[in-house]
Amino acid sequence: MRENPLQTIMNPESIVFLGGSNSLQTIGTAQLITLITGGYQGNIYPIHRREKTVLGLKAYPSVSSLDKPADLAIIVIPGKAIPGVLRECGEAGIHHAIVITAGYGETGQQGATLQQELLEIAQKYHIRFLGPNCIGIVNAPLGLNTTWFPNKYRAGHVGIISQSGSYVTQTLTYFEKLGLGLSQAISVGNQADIDMVDCLEYLGEDEQTRAIALYIEGIKRPAAFLQAARKITAHKPVVAVYVGGSEAGARACGSHTASMAGPDEIYRGFFHQAGILRADNIADLFDWSLALAQQPLPRGNKIAIVTNSGGPGSSMADEANHRGLKVPLLSPAVQDEIKAITPPTASALNPVDITMNYDVDLIYRKLPQLLLKQPDIDGLLFYGIFGTIHFQDKIAHVGGPASETLAFMKQTLEKACDEFVQWPEKLKKPILCACFSGREDNAVVQIQDGGIPVYPTPERAAGAMAALWEYAKIKNRKLP
Amino acid sequence: MRENPLQTIMNPESIVFLGGSNSLQTIGTAQLITLITGGYQGNIYPIHRREKTVLGLKAYPSVSSLDKPADLAIIVIPGKAIPGVLRECGEAGIHHAIVITAGYGETGQQGATLQQELLEIAQKYHIRFLGPNCIGIVNAPLGLNTTWFPNKYRAGHVGIISQSGSYVTQTLTYFEKLGLGLSQAISVGNQADIDMVDCLEYLGEDEQTRAIALYIEGIKRPAAFLQAARKITAHKPVVAVYVGGSEAGARACGSHTASMAGPDEIYRGFFHQAGILRADNIADLFDWSLALAQQPLPRGNKIAIVTNSGGPGSSMADEANHRGLKVPLLSPAVQDEIKAITPPTASALNPVDITMNYDVDLIYRKLPQLLLKQPDIDGLLFYGIFGTIHFQDKIAHVGGPASETLAFMKQTLEKACDEFVQWPEKLKKPILCACFSGREDNAVVQIQDGGIPVYPTPERAAGAMAALWEYAKIKNRKLP
Repeated sequence: MRENPLQTIMNPESIVFLGGSNSLQTIGTAQLITLITGGYQGNIYPIHRREKTVLGLKAYPSVSSLDKPADLAIIVIPGKAIPGVLRECGEAGIHHAIVITAGYGETGQQGATLQQELLEIAQKYHIRFLGPNCIGIVNAPLGLNTTWFPNKYRAGHVGIISQSGSYVTQTLTYFEKLGLGLSQAISVGNQADIDMVDCLEYLGEDEQTRAIALYIEGIKRPAAFLQAARKITAHKPVVAVYVGGSEAGARACGSHTASMAGPDEIYRGFFHQAGILRADNIADLFDWSLALAQQPLPRGNKIAIVTNSGGPGSSMADEANHRGLKVPLLSPAVQDEIKAITPPTASALNPVDITMNYDVDLIYRKLPQLLLKQPDIDGLLFYGIFGTIHFQDKIAHVGGPASETLAFMKQTLEKACDEFVQWPEKLKKPILCACFSGREDNAVVQIQDGGIPVYPTPERAAGAMAALWEYAKIKNRKLP
Repeated sequence: MRENPLQTIMNPESIVFLGGSNSLQTIGTAQLITLITGGYQGNIYPIHRREKTVLGLKAYPSVSSLDKPADLAIIVIPGKAIPGVLRECGEAGIHHAIVITAGYGETGQQGATLQQELLEIAQKYHIRFLGPNCIGIVNAPLGLNTTWFPNKYRAGHVGIISQSGSYVTQTLTYFEKLGLGLSQAISVGNQADIDMVDCLEYLGEDEQTRAIALYIEGIKRPAAFLQAARKITAHKPVVAVYVGGSEAGARACGSHTASMAGPDEIYRGFFHQAGILRADNIADLFDWSLALAQQPLPRGNKIAIVTNSGGPGSSMADEANHRGLKVPLLSPAVQDEIKAITPPTASALNPVDITMNYDVDLIYRKLPQLLLKQPDIDGLLFYGIFGTIHFQDKIAHVGGPASETLAFMKQTLEKACDEFVQWPEKLKKPILCACFSGREDNAVVQIQDGGIPVYPTPERAAGAMAALWEYAKIKNRKLP
């Protein structure tokens, strides 16, 4: 089998960088700074005609002046200089490149001709390249970030392949808030050479990647894509958002990455055949990928809900039903067990609503355990996270032995959350949470970092649980 | 016309508080702390049998020991003591109350009997009350917050009526991040006396409230609700989320606020007749209310999109189309005007994609103005917010006259954003933005605080724009 070119592009031992300088006037400089400061341990060789050093690194006047060929060339120079540089790379023995520069197929016929020229040079010199018109890559375990966005990702298990650079760069702060960790992310740009199929095959094999998120404007090689996807989705979940199905979406995609979009229905059927979950929007794409990367799959669609507030519990129940999940009435015996440990105002029907109550042992330990141990409950939706941060001002106001009280509450909560995040693995059933507070809440941080997704609204948690169930069905289906 | 009881409940000059103490063991204490620290200027009289002072305020042994009747009683004591206290309030001349305590109609037949008893006492003594089983109210301009959640709301123009206390308390941090400002918020609980219709009529008249968000588990007086809503929605937008339409949703609502839920289709028709926009989830409820409260309505459904990144622009275009908006191809003349001021890699078709580019004058001033001045463009979706915060680490790394550079960039950006937020009012057309960064980005803060909503994903901005158009059609419709 031919080696996937992304093996080297995503894991280079050395990088030659074209387009960085000591001035922030060029976008390349910003990218080179991210690369230098991100923790990447390989060698970085900036090319600069005049400067001796660039951003503190020794600079080389040209690619041909390097002592030995680098694994990867990153190219952010003006388009007219690229053909020459690509030839030079080929002659210097560099066989992998990322072309960031835009102004090719996405701009019309003239750009398409230039793009074809790049491809021909690359093929002549056996260079495989990503782009043009892309933003680069992130390989989180390596600390490798070639994009120009500040290096705020966390390492994790979601892999991203995107026809938009923004969804692997400007979304990094969004991921941070959601507690979503990346394995590797690839911006494919115009896919002149390397395309989504190569990326899919590569991430399909990557052990760190447990779920793959795709942002698609149009698929270049549908047959190969389908074949690759079917093979992967039998063991690893893939979620996709497709934006080319409407008139305006198709026009936007054409001018963005020169993609040939097709009608929504065709893509819907195509994703179904491929075993790919289709998300309707970017929020769902990342929500679902996060759950799929971190939680066990449910064996069925019967979900228990635990809440300390009726409204969010009702929202979860309603959304779960709308998305094909069941929220079954609990058996009288289980209801009795619940009633024995909950306050008189509580409801034990399912949702189990303990009402306003901060018995952390009840909500984080007893109830999840009791419910997930029932053979006819396949997963748990949870609303009731409430960190001690919210008590600080109250305690300060009351005065007295305030710091001791808070320290004790904190300790109790931390212990309970610590146990809570272990239930999914111990009991082989998924838990997904919602909380209107984000990582400013210390319990949200602990639960997210412990591996259980916490979404900003109840419906988003329910939607992600439905995605787990949808993928469980895909995984179990017999392929013809 | 009889005065709406909420006039006094939402604007009391004095409050008697039953259930606060000097210990955080009771939930009432936490609520009293919020009340005291929230900025409310009226008098607060805590009732306590033994203590001389409660949380630094003079305490009274009973309601009857007050010199003169308070406007409002807030009751957070155990249920069995409430009938007696309610009688005492009546005898002391207090005619308005909020009963926070739970354990009534939502817990079954016995609770329903207790609730009926409360109602009869109240009626006998001419007391109007909110609850039981509610979390209280927020009147933002007064700094009045009777809930127990830290006082983090900002004052603004969205009014909330909710059958769940969490949606007016635990959501406060969520609102903060969205830049959503509250006018008044009411948790209605079991609606034993005051119900949603009273609240709707009250907020319909409130000048500070420019859009009303409803969280509904079931409607008690459908005919009166319909009549009130139709009157209001002819001039003020109302958005509702309804969670009782599914089997599990209905069960959850029954055990939460004793609501009688009905099938989804019936509520759908009902909302349509009432001129109420139906949101499918809590995120949409607040997203749409925010846009409706702060932006002018579009006169038609033709939207321009400005972006500095193809992916988010495509996502906006696709979602806009799916939601009934048009993203028309711009005329050749307008395209030429755009091409004259944008870089060669840009697209002028609509979305107008200026590609990666930080010409703030172009993106915040020239393009929005040019597009919104076109007679056949009714509103603008915008992706391209990028604060100077993101350049700080780059500038620090480059060294040299870093602080001057940053200061100059900041100044330029602030001036551009300042002008940007004025376009909607000047040109009488709405602008809605998306940015994956939140309020950690200085430009997001400036634009949100300047009155233009900034949503966390492109689709949410497009969805809110569609809501503006839906309400514009409702407002223009001729009612029979």
